[in-house]
Amino acid sequence: MKRPASDMDTLFNPRSVALIGASATPGKIGTTTLFCMTAGDFKGKVYPVNPKETEIMGLKTYDSIANIPEKVDLAVICVVADRVPQVIEECAAAGVKYGVVISAGFGEVNEDGQELQRNIVDTAREKGMRLVGPNCMGMGSAACSLYVTINFTIPAHGDVSIVSQSGTLATVIALGGSSDGVGVGKYVSSGNEADLHSEDFIEYYAHDPETKVVVAFIEGVKDGDRFMRASRELTKNKPFIVLKGGSSEAGAKAVSSHTGSLAGSYQVFDAMCAQSGIINVTGSREAIDLAKAFSLLPLPEGRNVGIVSAQGGLGVLMADACVRHGLELAKLTKETSDELDSFLPYFWSHGNPVDVTGGTTDIRDITKALDVLLRQDDVHSTVCVAPTFSEMFSPVASRMSDAGRKAFETMAVWVMGETERGFTKDLIELRAKYDKPIIGVSLLPSHGSEAVKILESNRIPVYDTPDQIAYVLSKLAGYREYREKNGY
Amino acid sequence: MKRPASDMDTLFNPRSVALIGASATPGKIGTTTLFCMTAGDFKGKVYPVNPKETEIMGLKTYDSIANIPEKVDLAVICVVADRVPQVIEECAAAGVKYGVVISAGFGEVNEDGQELQRNIVDTAREKGMRLVGPNCMGMGSAACSLYVTINFTIPAHGDVSIVSQSGTLATVIALGGSSDGVGVGKYVSSGNEADLHSEDFIEYYAHDPETKVVVAFIEGVKDGDRFMRASRELTKNKPFIVLKGGSSEAGAKAVSSHTGSLAGSYQVFDAMCAQSGIINVTGSREAIDLAKAFSLLPLPEGRNVGIVSAQGGLGVLMADACVRHGLELAKLTKETSDELDSFLPYFWSHGNPVDVTGGTTDIRDITKALDVLLRQDDVHSTVCVAPTFSEMFSPVASRMSDAGRKAFETMAVWVMGETERGFTKDLIELRAKYDKPIIGVSLLPSHGSEAVKILESNRIPVYDTPDQIAYVLSKLAGYREYREKNGY
Repeated sequence: MKRPASDMDTLFNPRSVALIGASATPGKIGTTTLFCMTAGDFKGKVYPVNPKETEIMGLKTYDSIANIPEKVDLAVICVVADRVPQVIEECAAAGVKYGVVISAGFGEVNEDGQELQRNIVDTAREKGMRLVGPNCMGMGSAACSLYVTINFTIPAHGDVSIVSQSGTLATVIALGGSSDGVGVGKYVSSGNEADLHSEDFIEYYAHDPETKVVVAFIEGVKDGDRFMRASRELTKNKPFIVLKGGSSEAGAKAVSSHTGSLAGSYQVFDAMCAQSGIINVTGSREAIDLAKAFSLLPLPEGRNVGIVSAQGGLGVLMADACVRHGLELAKLTKETSDELDSFLPYFWSHGNPVDVTGGTTDIRDITKALDVLLRQDDVHSTVCVAPTFSEMFSPVASRMSDAGRKAFETMAVWVMGETERGFTKDLIELRAKYDKPIIGVSLLPSHGSEAVKILESNRIPVYDTPDQIAYVLSKLAGYREYREKNGY
Repeated sequence: MKRPASDMDTLFNPRSVALIGASATPGKIGTTTLFCMTAGDFKGKVYPVNPKETEIMGLKTYDSIANIPEKVDLAVICVVADRVPQVIEECAAAGVKYGVVISAGFGEVNEDGQELQRNIVDTAREKGMRLVGPNCMGMGSAACSLYVTINFTIPAHGDVSIVSQSGTLATVIALGGSSDGVGVGKYVSSGNEADLHSEDFIEYYAHDPETKVVVAFIEGVKDGDRFMRASRELTKNKPFIVLKGGSSEAGAKAVSSHTGSLAGSYQVFDAMCAQSGIINVTGSREAIDLAKAFSLLPLPEGRNVGIVSAQGGLGVLMADACVRHGLELAKLTKETSDELDSFLPYFWSHGNPVDVTGGTTDIRDITKALDVLLRQDDVHSTVCVAPTFSEMFSPVASRMSDAGRKAFETMAVWVMGETERGFTKDLIELRAKYDKPIIGVSLLPSHGSEAVKILESNRIPVYDTPDQIAYVLSKLAGYREYREKNGY
């Protein structure tokens, strides 16, 4: 009965989608979901099903899936739990291939709900229909710009794919990531996993050409062996970042009331991760930071980092963070040092971090120094400390007098705007010239700023803190080591 | 010769300030500094000194400090290093009490610079003038709205004071904090600390009524005993958050070329912190997170946390984070549980985290549940998971069709706006009713949003991740324990 994973193409690229339980009432799930399904750029057909309406949001409404004139690939179901079995039966009879069951009130609630849940899976499978959920938030696919979601989870497009046993965490990672340079290929909120499990999606993502990086939120694994097999297959070619909910006893208890899963022993899970090349993280922040790094950067050939800074204090903290995360500060060769001597102020740091100091007359000395470091063979990654981005100072203007604000706006342009443009251009050229990571650490939070957008669209990720950078570089290096050790 | 610390009132509240080296040339330090000195709301007099100009930025310019008609409290000096000794001599002769020496090229550069540095201190002290710097970024004071800064460090006003041996880190903490709910009372970039040391400012902040929380960035401590004494005195009444640069060997090397300090052994420093009640952090993110928490929240009476959530997955991660950071999940009493039973859906989690579930019909059930938890004596702090803030979904609109965007804007208002207002009001009332921490964890980064501003101005801090919250709560509890243990 089980289909090969590749068949999921229909789930993520349906030509036609029906929404059973579509609504026109503000605030209802059936309303928000229909809105999101049509708010993107989905080119397929969307059929709202609601026997009490004739038209919702300008779309003709059907009283039943049976009366839709075309074969429907995907049915999204958000009617009350009691009605779901009948709806599934009708969908299966109509030849629907996939159902996304948003409705809650199943296995997560009580024994009766568990019975209901088994019931709908049996009904679906009898006709070869497969189910996502129940008790899920939806799914999304950049390939066809379809976003089935109860909470506006319409992320930026990209190559990071997500499977999450929590709808909230799918949103946190997809939308939080979107605001921070991560583009999403596919996401699915797997809910109670009555039929399709996380493992099914992991298997699918392993061979999905539109997925480069996979992020999962896992509360409980139903089949540990299969999870490990799927993960091992995936990590041969793609980094797999897993955020585990229920790592503590208190969290594990909360898991059982959330999705009815058993969290299992975190020690066992952690060991599984180490053996399978999984990158195990404790928070969504780390997951997003890693997804961005793996999506934008090549894997470094080793753990040696070169740092260039005009801000001594941040350079010091960057060095500390590297050591804390198991990286090494590359030793400058005599050649490198001599070359830096040729254009930096005589009192530059003469070591790594390369502090060009406030005595430098041209901020582009920073990119010249980076170029020198990148040329040294055993510098595997480079960090550029605080490329100045004028936009990050813009909140300061709100604290000035009117006259001050006007002067500041002119001033900020000449102080930072000009050099910034040249500097950004230099960085982008360096990134194209060397196949090594270049990462920027921002002086102040600067996400959403034009300069950061330009850098990240040119595969130079920017982070707010040295700690984030050292963390992602160590994981990039670790993943490369895992693959080398296993001969991938 | 040494003045008592309280005399620093003149440094932080001068009636008149001269800028030696004021300039009208765009991009020069003397230009930016003069601009910042006048961009705030400083009510005292500002005297630019530059023999080649008659007026800069609308201010009459003097050719020498000697010719300024009034006694100057504070002289800011940004001429080239070689000229500094003569300037100091003139300032001291004119009765100037404090000098902020921004100029670089002293002890951080070479032996000659060290000699020059000793020289200016001797000259100043002879006349009872005290110096900040050299090689510093400036200082700021909310009390008089004076911001002497070479890089626009004009933060939001508040009760967190900063001393930093790196100008960059002063900016990172002051401005990064300002964008994140932290208000700054005073800051000083102490540079090479030729005369005034970090310890002087720590001593001053200990008794400054406008300072509630102190944050320091330290690269090297010149007098360990005095640092410990000052810290112990400070932590009797105020939390002291220290970010140490040079905790690693590589970082320590970088320190010596940055400010010419000796970083010393990090193990020794760490032990000093533990003995002195210092909260030792490794990054500016942690420093800012803690400054916000200590500034806005009462110290919790213990380590028991109560969590209320409508988002199961985030509640699970919040519980995991608490345990990871040495906090406990409060056990619900029968009374608490019964009361929650009376209004939550029957399938609520029946434990802590209190997951009200998606089955709840009124989002204000969350604040009702929080009220019940806060009433339980041994719940020492509470966390509200993901109060829905419509603004955080606004980036989604940019990814919709024009029609979609319009519909979304209406929709987002009715889906989240109404409930959000009531919900925020409830939270604020609870914060006023109980003297216990209430913290919010946001679903998506929401700093700068109106809802977060309203909450934080009502002393309910909001963070992006469970990890940040568990971290700050554990440090709040730890500081209370330190004070209890020492009988403060």
